[in-house]
Amino acid sequence: MKILKKEIPIEVSARHIHLCQKDLEALFGKGYRLKKLKNLFQPGEFAAKEILEVKGNSEKSLNFRVLGPLRKKTQIELSKTDAILLGINPPVRDSDDLKDTPSVILIGPKGKIKPKQGGVINNWRHLHCNFKEAEKFGLKDKKLVSVKINGLCALTFHNVKVRVGKKTRLCLHLDTDEGNAANIKIKGRGEIINQ
Amino acid sequence: MKILKKEIPIEVSARHIHLCQKDLEALFGKGYRLKKLKNLFQPGEFAAKEILEVKGNSEKSLNFRVLGPLRKKTQIELSKTDAILLGINPPVRDSDDLKDTPSVILIGPKGKIKPKQGGVINNWRHLHCNFKEAEKFGLKDKKLVSVKINGLCALTFHNVKVRVGKKTRLCLHLDTDEGNAANIKIKGRGEIINQ
Repeated sequence: MKILKKEIPIEVSARHIHLCQKDLEALFGKGYRLKKLKNLFQPGEFAAKEILEVKGNSEKSLNFRVLGPLRKKTQIELSKTDAILLGINPPVRDSDDLKDTPSVILIGPKGKIKPKQGGVINNWRHLHCNFKEAEKFGLKDKKLVSVKINGLCALTFHNVKVRVGKKTRLCLHLDTDEGNAANIKIKGRGEIINQ
Repeated sequence: MKILKKEIPIEVSARHIHLCQKDLEALFGKGYRLKKLKNLFQPGEFAAKEILEVKGNSEKSLNFRVLGPLRKKTQIELSKTDAILLGINPPVRDSDDLKDTPSVILIGPKGKIKPKQGGVINNWRHLHCNFKEAEKFGLKDKKLVSVKINGLCALTFHNVKVRVGKKTRLCLHLDTDEGNAANIKIKGRGEIINQ
């Protein structure tokens, strides 16, 4: 797979939760609808106003922002720093690949649940793009590439998984540990290089 | 500078504090001596039993372990994740390079101080070695190298500063953000590659 050298945008994702309809209603009440706080970079995705308290196996809890729209399965995404604080050990996984993942207690204004199917993951670093961008840069869905970030804390992330979607826009998603390691607070730039 | 490919040990440093004599006494009482908890990998260095509460500009505080022996200047080392939580923005710096660094409130059992000279840094990722190891691997003090870490979360840290000392042992020091980004909990292995 030949990859052209290409500068790409980077976004750092802080811990967050995607909810399914059933869990949304268990936490916020029957018929509840998420309130949009702001649109995210990926079309259709938004940060909701709702925040949930999350408890794992430690004494501490953390607040997680809910993202919309709703999904088929509830998914809780966090960094390894967050996981250590909550006393849990989630695997590094792609979105929706939730088999044998740990669970946590989600605390909302109208209820408290511990999803039976687990759902906590440290999201595998990934590069979103649409079919047109994939063709332009020689990227293939689920293939691995490397992305170099320059600056004082320069580093190259290997094993970045390409995720080609219909409506997605070219962007590398990192968690807060990865973003901080590269000295990227919220948004940055990187360059796709050969794996 | 030619660098041989070489596997090296890696250690992740959690947030910690080095104290000067004056600050130690202000926090723990006159004539106080640190109690050793365990020796660290670098000869002469140790983790002390003492813990200090640290407050920055946010409502939250964090506990920091004190390391020994005492130093000429108090130095507080933390990750960017820790800094965000405390509401401060320390620079990425080498040890002892404390000019114009922010300060925090240190809370001990016998007193509370805010060091006037600042002292909070995000320690520049660095590779310790002694003169013999430096010669063997073609490393020069203060020069920059890259270190690659393999595995699921493989990455290459660039701008790793070499620190050659008389008694130090070959080891890459990372902060917890960097360690987590590479999926290294406490100890790991990496390989020096050309910068």
